[in-house]
Amino acid sequence: MIFAKIRNNNTMAQKPGIPKGTRDFNSEQIAKRNYIIQHIKRNFENYGFQPIETPSFENYQTLMGKYGEEGDRLIFKILNSGDYLRKVDAALYEEKDSKKITPKISEKALRYDLTVPFARYVVQHQNELSFPFKRYQIQPVWRADRPQKGRFREFYQCDADVVGSQSLWQDVSFTLLYDQVFTDLEIPVHIKINNRKILSGLAELLEEKDKFTEFIVALDKLDKIGKEGVVSEMLAKNISEKSIQNISPIFESKGSNEEKIALLKNLLQNSKEGQKGIEELKFVLQQTNKIGLQSAQIEFDITLARGLNYYTGSIYEVVADNVAMGSIGGGGRYDDLTGIFGLKNMSGIGISFGLDRIYLVMESLDLFKDITLAKPDILFVNFGGGEAMYSLQAIQKLRKNNIKAELFPDASKLKKQMNYANKRQIAYVAMAGSQEMTENVFSIKNMQNGEQQKLSVDEIIELLH
Amino acid sequence: MIFAKIRNNNTMAQKPGIPKGTRDFNSEQIAKRNYIIQHIKRNFENYGFQPIETPSFENYQTLMGKYGEEGDRLIFKILNSGDYLRKVDAALYEEKDSKKITPKISEKALRYDLTVPFARYVVQHQNELSFPFKRYQIQPVWRADRPQKGRFREFYQCDADVVGSQSLWQDVSFTLLYDQVFTDLEIPVHIKINNRKILSGLAELLEEKDKFTEFIVALDKLDKIGKEGVVSEMLAKNISEKSIQNISPIFESKGSNEEKIALLKNLLQNSKEGQKGIEELKFVLQQTNKIGLQSAQIEFDITLARGLNYYTGSIYEVVADNVAMGSIGGGGRYDDLTGIFGLKNMSGIGISFGLDRIYLVMESLDLFKDITLAKPDILFVNFGGGEAMYSLQAIQKLRKNNIKAELFPDASKLKKQMNYANKRQIAYVAMAGSQEMTENVFSIKNMQNGEQQKLSVDEIIELLH
Repeated sequence: MIFAKIRNNNTMAQKPGIPKGTRDFNSEQIAKRNYIIQHIKRNFENYGFQPIETPSFENYQTLMGKYGEEGDRLIFKILNSGDYLRKVDAALYEEKDSKKITPKISEKALRYDLTVPFARYVVQHQNELSFPFKRYQIQPVWRADRPQKGRFREFYQCDADVVGSQSLWQDVSFTLLYDQVFTDLEIPVHIKINNRKILSGLAELLEEKDKFTEFIVALDKLDKIGKEGVVSEMLAKNISEKSIQNISPIFESKGSNEEKIALLKNLLQNSKEGQKGIEELKFVLQQTNKIGLQSAQIEFDITLARGLNYYTGSIYEVVADNVAMGSIGGGGRYDDLTGIFGLKNMSGIGISFGLDRIYLVMESLDLFKDITLAKPDILFVNFGGGEAMYSLQAIQKLRKNNIKAELFPDASKLKKQMNYANKRQIAYVAMAGSQEMTENVFSIKNMQNGEQQKLSVDEIIELLH
Repeated sequence: MIFAKIRNNNTMAQKPGIPKGTRDFNSEQIAKRNYIIQHIKRNFENYGFQPIETPSFENYQTLMGKYGEEGDRLIFKILNSGDYLRKVDAALYEEKDSKKITPKISEKALRYDLTVPFARYVVQHQNELSFPFKRYQIQPVWRADRPQKGRFREFYQCDADVVGSQSLWQDVSFTLLYDQVFTDLEIPVHIKINNRKILSGLAELLEEKDKFTEFIVALDKLDKIGKEGVVSEMLAKNISEKSIQNISPIFESKGSNEEKIALLKNLLQNSKEGQKGIEELKFVLQQTNKIGLQSAQIEFDITLARGLNYYTGSIYEVVADNVAMGSIGGGGRYDDLTGIFGLKNMSGIGISFGLDRIYLVMESLDLFKDITLAKPDILFVNFGGGEAMYSLQAIQKLRKNNIKAELFPDASKLKKQMNYANKRQIAYVAMAGSQEMTENVFSIKNMQNGEQQKLSVDEIIELLH
């Protein structure tokens, strides 16, 4: 087994740092992240999902071309081993074209999301799976994005998907799941919901049949830039005033979900696709209301689009109330996810939780109040020799009772050892000199209130259990 | 937020696979891996360690040169974004030398182990840490090794290290920690221990002062190739017969740890370094025996070397009895780990658990008997419409009691739904027709013995809790 060998480089010591967009986590940050993950995981499992894990890097061909041009640009590629330039023929090498040469020198790339790996997994293992197949996956992904608040180059995705069923009961389940997780985390949220077929129905009202994408992209910005901004953008993309007038009732779409649905039913009366979308949305909203949400508000958002060519039915987006953080969750229904890998007609639906943004929301709302850190429960002072062995024997008993205990490693000055206990916020310190050893006890000091008492090992176990 | 868009490539569907040396994990494999990790983690925390996490990729400069030539070759490098070839000047590009060009087109590389990132972390965050600093780290690392049994390109390391103390009580603690973990996992092991200073003392007996590495590398193979093989290799490396004769008593080193120590004390009587190593080893063995190991055997192995320039004191290696797997754990004491990053005089000691090999050992010893999978506790049959809603309302109550329950998504034939329950090994199936709905109960079938009974929701909660 290869093990680390550190050569002394004789170079000036490097000032250490980490790549932009990445982070170290200390144990407090880990405890907070795990707090969120545990709530998500427990609910995933309560809702019948089981975990899978996929490799950090996939074959280059598996990922490239699945996320549009932007995705290809932002995927991290892994350089081939050995003399990788040998595989680049002379003519191509001459061009010195980074984009063209990349596939010749890189055969692997880091996960960009969990959905494409999931699709690859389903197809690769289809003979081992029972359908409908439900899985959750909580793993990091990597993107060469420009880092900013809430946007990192390495971040976690928490996904749950079902493939192999077109049942709208899954769509209902996911609104309940979002509500349950954010209720457990105590984050007030709005769950925005739309349906891709409704957007298709709207697009049928345009004169220009080839402007669907431009139309949806502009419409999706209504929250941010208002009606004027959206109309300007549509005109700039050569969507006619007549088209805009045809769809303009949605700009006045306010009020309850029922009122919005009534408006759409009327506007899309001539669209079979649009009517289907409205029926699907109605079912999801009605069943959700019958069960009842605990803390989340569900809102029909006619302009919600997210991934365009990706979703084919329900579309979700979750935003936290009162915190400007963008979306903290999203998802939707898709058909033919796995077709690209050779398995047709696999309908699926999935949702995602944005762990890092949820973390930031909880910090700003001061919701990390009762996080337990994995720090020691008790520190034993090291007086050296026989006393240290006496302490270590007690420590072993405590550890067998799952009490986190340690012996200060060196027989340093008492003050130094107490400072160490304080810095690590260890609640109790134990001391044993010859007196305590004779009585088979320890002097236990409560570091918060200063109280001291003499306790046997069994009494310490009682205290700290 | 960027979201997945799947373009239909119109190319022939790709047969999906994953890069060699990587693995997908299904939920059973995850449950087994987590079983091991939980035992390691719990004990790390009982022994006073707190977790940190570092990014998956570090700066290229942080990792390169730290693992010898082999390491540089086996580290996975990440291609820079954008027009990365632009940074390669014309003259260098002309050479088409992969090795020389790599640092120009790659500024980041995947973690190769957890020790160098740990050293970088300690130096980078030194003002926030209290020393001695104890941390555990359980994360994947990546190496472009040739895959074989027990060797993967992506695998987990489970490390615990202490820096900032030279106390031998840490060394004692780590033997106890190894014993505790393998006792909890029920794996019979031998903990092999040596001391680098003893090896230095032995090397003083050689005539050739520049053959230390060759000497140690050959000696380390004694278990595998025997005395003849080791002597041949030493002679081939130009270590004289006289030198070999000087150290030959260690070839006869058998018997108890005490007998081996007596032999070494005599052989190294003129080596100050060697005597120091013997005293350190004696202390660790004696205190360990006083506390007592629960199931592991500890064995002084004079030939144990592992990382050569890396360790400066105690050296550990753990092997499973009766299973040919190589080492399943290892570690040791090192000085000046952080000097390379600018922080001198940081003595440390750390150990590692080889998760993937431990997994294989446990499989071969059939030790994964009581693993609980995260599968649903109960499946509710979907008869559509009102019955489905009635079931979903019950399911929500069950989930609030942390019972894993789900509604079969489609109103498929009953046989299909029962097959699904069997394939997923779900223990109970619930059904509700109009009769059950009137009585406010469900028909519950035990899928293992076929028994059926009618239960209210509260009674189901009672049953499954």
